[in-house]
Amino acid sequence: MDHAIGIDIGGTNLRAAVVDPTGAVVDAVSVDTPTDAGALDEALVDVIGELSGRHAVSAVGLAVAGFVSRDQQTVRFAPHLPWRDAAVPARISPRVGLPVFLEHDANSAAWGEARFGPAGAGENVAVLAIGTGIGAALLVDGRLYRGSNGVAPELGHLQVVPGGRQCACGKSGCFERYCSGTALAATAAELLAAEPGRPSELRRAPDGVTGAAVADAAAAGDPVALETMADFAYWLGMGLSIVADVFDPDLIVVAGGVATSAPLFLDDARRVYAGLVTGAGHRRLARIRRSELGVAAAMVGAAELARRNAAASGTDRIGGGGAEAP
Amino acid sequence: MDHAIGIDIGGTNLRAAVVDPTGAVVDAVSVDTPTDAGALDEALVDVIGELSGRHAVSAVGLAVAGFVSRDQQTVRFAPHLPWRDAAVPARISPRVGLPVFLEHDANSAAWGEARFGPAGAGENVAVLAIGTGIGAALLVDGRLYRGSNGVAPELGHLQVVPGGRQCACGKSGCFERYCSGTALAATAAELLAAEPGRPSELRRAPDGVTGAAVADAAAAGDPVALETMADFAYWLGMGLSIVADVFDPDLIVVAGGVATSAPLFLDDARRVYAGLVTGAGHRRLARIRRSELGVAAAMVGAAELARRNAAASGTDRIGGGGAEAP
Amino acid sequence: MDHAIGIDIGGTNLRAAVVDPTGAVVDAVSVDTPTDAGALDEALVDVIGELSGRHAVSAVGLAVAGFVSRDQQTVRFAPHLPWRDAAVPARISPRVGLPVFLEHDANSAAWGEARFGPAGAGENVAVLAIGTGIGAALLVDGRLYRGSNGVAPELGHLQVVPGGRQCACGKSGCFERYCSGTALAATAAELLAAEPGRPSELRRAPDGVTGAAVADAAAAGDPVALETMADFAYWLGMGLSIVADVFDPDLIVVAGGVATSAPLFLDDARRVYAGLVTGAGHRRLARIRRSELGVAAAMVGAAELARRNAAASGTDRIGGGGAEAP
Amino acid sequence: MDHAIGIDIGGTNLRAAVVDPTGAVVDAVSVDTPTDAGALDEALVDVIGELSGRHAVSAVGLAVAGFVSRDQQTVRFAPHLPWRDAAVPARISPRVGLPVFLEHDANSAAWGEARFGPAGAGENVAVLAIGTGIGAALLVDGRLYRGSNGVAPELGHLQVVPGGRQCACGKSGCFERYCSGTALAATAAELLAAEPGRPSELRRAPDGVTGAAVADAAAAGDPVALETMADFAYWLGMGLSIVADVFDPDLIVVAGGVATSAPLFLDDARRVYAGLVTGAGHRRLARIRRSELGVAAAMVGAAELARRNAAASGTDRIGGGGAEAP
Repeated sequence: MDHAIGIDIGGTNLRAAVVDPTGAVVDAVSVDTPTDAGALDEALVDVIGELSGRHAVSAVGLAVAGFVSRDQQTVRFAPHLPWRDAAVPARISPRVGLPVFLEHDANSAAWGEARFGPAGAGENVAVLAIGTGIGAALLVDGRLYRGSNGVAPELGHLQVVPGGRQCACGKSGCFERYCSGTALAATAAELLAAEPGRPSELRRAPDGVTGAAVADAAAAGDPVALETMADFAYWLGMGLSIVADVFDPDLIVVAGGVATSAPLFLDDARRVYAGLVTGAGHRRLARIRRSELGVAAAMVGAAELARRNAAASGTDRIGGGGAEAP
Repeated sequence: MDHAIGIDIGGTNLRAAVVDPTGAVVDAVSVDTPTDAGALDEALVDVIGELSGRHAVSAVGLAVAGFVSRDQQTVRFAPHLPWRDAAVPARISPRVGLPVFLEHDANSAAWGEARFGPAGAGENVAVLAIGTGIGAALLVDGRLYRGSNGVAPELGHLQVVPGGRQCACGKSGCFERYCSGTALAATAAELLAAEPGRPSELRRAPDGVTGAAVADAAAAGDPVALETMADFAYWLGMGLSIVADVFDPDLIVVAGGVATSAPLFLDDARRVYAGLVTGAGHRRLARIRRSELGVAAAMVGAAELARRNAAASGTDRIGGGGAEAP
Repeated sequence: MDHAIGIDIGGTNLRAAVVDPTGAVVDAVSVDTPTDAGALDEALVDVIGELSGRHAVSAVGLAVAGFVSRDQQTVRFAPHLPWRDAAVPARISPRVGLPVFLEHDANSAAWGEARFGPAGAGENVAVLAIGTGIGAALLVDGRLYRGSNGVAPELGHLQVVPGGRQCACGKSGCFERYCSGTALAATAAELLAAEPGRPSELRRAPDGVTGAAVADAAAAGDPVALETMADFAYWLGMGLSIVADVFDPDLIVVAGGVATSAPLFLDDARRVYAGLVTGAGHRRLARIRRSELGVAAAMVGAAELARRNAAASGTDRIGGGGAEAP
Repeated sequence: MDHAIGIDIGGTNLRAAVVDPTGAVVDAVSVDTPTDAGALDEALVDVIGELSGRHAVSAVGLAVAGFVSRDQQTVRFAPHLPWRDAAVPARISPRVGLPVFLEHDANSAAWGEARFGPAGAGENVAVLAIGTGIGAALLVDGRLYRGSNGVAPELGHLQVVPGGRQCACGKSGCFERYCSGTALAATAAELLAAEPGRPSELRRAPDGVTGAAVADAAAAGDPVALETMADFAYWLGMGLSIVADVFDPDLIVVAGGVATSAPLFLDDARRVYAGLVTGAGHRRLARIRRSELGVAAAMVGAAELARRNAAASGTDRIGGGGAEAP
């Protein structure tokens, strides 16, 4: 009965896992994310039904890339999902017979990392989740900092290059246009366009120049992909310095899909970060760590948060003790 | 015995006040800030002696533009002061016979505003203190967020213009090079240089083109000064959107010396802010308010924090009750 | 005997034409451009032999994207061809039994346009040839301006965005990274990356996101392609203002492969240009015209220049009379 | 009778000289430039009367910072003077009994340098005149290139920093905002604002932070002034690379008031230039020389051009022979 379901609802896939109280994933399924709201409800009910049929679970946590109301019962706005001011738990919960809680996906991942990953308990921890875009989360003394709108720290749309790459948000030069999986694709495409005659295996990538194709090519030593990664490392280093400046945490965890390629950029990014953070010689630098949970972080964190909420633990503070007790 | 002394130790002036428990300044003195550490100690002892000779006070709070250790007993680094890893309270306290506490100046101002100004208690409040540079502070649920190094949120050195104005920190294009009193001077100087023949009373400013001269000229309708203010308003609006994105507060208080000219720019800045904040249509916008305490905020806040610390209140949470009780 | 062969030696194709004295193409062939110098010589000899076997010709003109010596007998440097300080005519001429002359490709196109296209004779005419990169040429009083190194005006590598897109030349933010066929590809890739969920037929382009694919999609109304074209129009307008500022010509001809899509961007570019050119209200604005010869311009111009050179006309001035006489 | 008067009509001063056929200044006067058109006419008549009373002269040349019609009889637009479509020679000439010719000031200076300075005859020479703003001139095979509007090459308003310093022309980030005497003032003001506590003798400059004050302070070793000069050298180097790219001259002469401080920046600028010019390894780099005539160049050139025009030489080509003969 201590198990919970965590579902990471991405723009492409809906990935669900049964998570035990130690943070281990004991079962998992993945389906395509439907593009209309009704079908999305059905898919969630189906997936929850399938998993709760195989395991005894106490709660469901939904990790969403969007604004979530402070009471965790309404999705206000999720750019890549068909939900606007949608009371998702109220619709799903009666059908699956389980309490359902919403959480921002970066918050979910942060919680997963902080609870079961390198973060450890009781610290100020920031998580930078780098995938299609950038998600960020902050734990203050072990509690998720949600802000007044229930919005996690939003770093993806800080303007870092005035007049730079157009962003879907309407501005230009936003940070996530330079530091994300899609930024890898854009940078590589620019480099390929700049030198039409320069050989690169990216020119033959079967699905086009995607972030994943760049990561693969970089791992194989392709020069254009390596140059792309070097550019990415610069911007990630700048992003880490922004996180250190504005939140001054003990630890920054680099998470999200791009983190799986961390050996290709993380050391370079650390050097850039150390050079850019304000007052570098006069402060303890926040440690930079790669996520240990990888792409499972949001599922694991959402499940754990839901389990705690369902247990009415009265606290969402890491190390708070009570909740862990049976 | 409920009174305390707050001292705002700026690069130019050392301003001290006796503050009562309602936040009122009942006495104040100001002297030049000495440039060597020994003379600075003497000046502090003198000022404290003078004020504590006239009023019964229980504690002294020093507001410093720099990094302060978490235990508030050491100044790690203060760019404009002769202190490096300086245990200032340990040196001063025995000589004045009073407990002495250090606090970052933006934190002090934030505390003053939050405790006695428009902030009200119990909210998430950010303070943007704009003077020579930019200081920022954040109250989370009424508590100062100090981060792991005791560093207040540092927003002045976020790079907003790659390759832009050189900053003393070694980077270029830092935010405070575009949004501060010294930025007013730099922008006006650029505009004057761009059109040598354009008339402006700034060309005859007795102390040169300073931020204060720009503010005065703008108030008098000088076109170059007004254009400078419009540029400033843009960058302040961007700064407000950064604060809203990263901290998602209920309220942002614009404080510091430049805030005294708020009627010249604050409405424009609000419009820019509303256009730049992420997800503007899907969230409650943080209110933007001008400081009510003005340049006294840091003194008042430092005094109040010192009074609480001395009373061993065990809490620095606004609305925490205990400390206010006699 | 008044016919001449013009060959446009591009990085991908080697396109050759027999051109009559009225500028009409009477025969043409195209082959792939070999990547080594020996094979390139062979291909040129073959093509010239084939065409001169079918037509009586008096000379051969080679249009090259690179630096050509002032005597038009040596290619100094051509980034996309296997020639470095190569005396190409000396090697080819004896084998084909015809005089061979080199010319920069933008100069060739400019000459073709000026002699047979909209330019008319005797004017100051600038040609902006936009293809993979940007070529530029200037006719001063009807004469090609070659400069002291035999280098046509080089506008492609003016830095227009410090810290912008990486260029193969080693700098960043070069003009041709924003205004060329490859820039179309880069901009579209950026836009697609910025909004992974935004529908666009470019995501299904059979040969990937190329400049040609963008032009086709824009013509078909694809929103991402149209946004790309709007961005291109801005930069072209800026480029036209640069040409007008530095050369102050009567006429600017927009040529090169991208000019075939002129209806998609030329009016917008004209508006931007009129707003950016210096002293707009106090000068006659240079007319902006689209190339009439299209991709044949370089071949036609190279042929015509070679015919004149071979006739020892003693002049390369348009309207000079003598050369046109039999 | 071979002497002529040249007058450099600046926004501040009207400087006039009697110049002999060897380019030597044999007499000179300077007066303030009146700000209304009538008074300016009077001042010109007075100055010409005074000088022609002391010397036998054959013609008067007026060097103007503005657009001059192709027939050199009308000032179309001069931003810092009270002339708009003004037929200045038609008004002045009858009153002074001498032929009067107009010329753009950078063209005048270029002609002076080319005829009597380091340029020598018969070359392609570009002149970059750096004063309050930037003037440029080009000699093609020894002839002034005036373009179709009689406008000298206009380089000052090429945008080099999108979103950069505001320019009086309405754009932002124009080249002359970074590379001119007024740019020196703006850069120094920025640096001083960035570090209020940094000592610099510029803080005590009697006439404020002007370009001249920066040059003096740099010569005296002031660190802020030297940093300003280093920044200037970078932008001048970029400007030289622009000139080399677009005009490909043999020689670039750096002239104008700022050139008098050339030892403080010219070697650094040359290094930047060599690194930025396109195809650096594959071309002869244009030589960079400092003006030999200094601030007299425009007067000397205007006088010499007027003398030739009056002599109906039929040529303005350097080395053309006829005009020099008596």
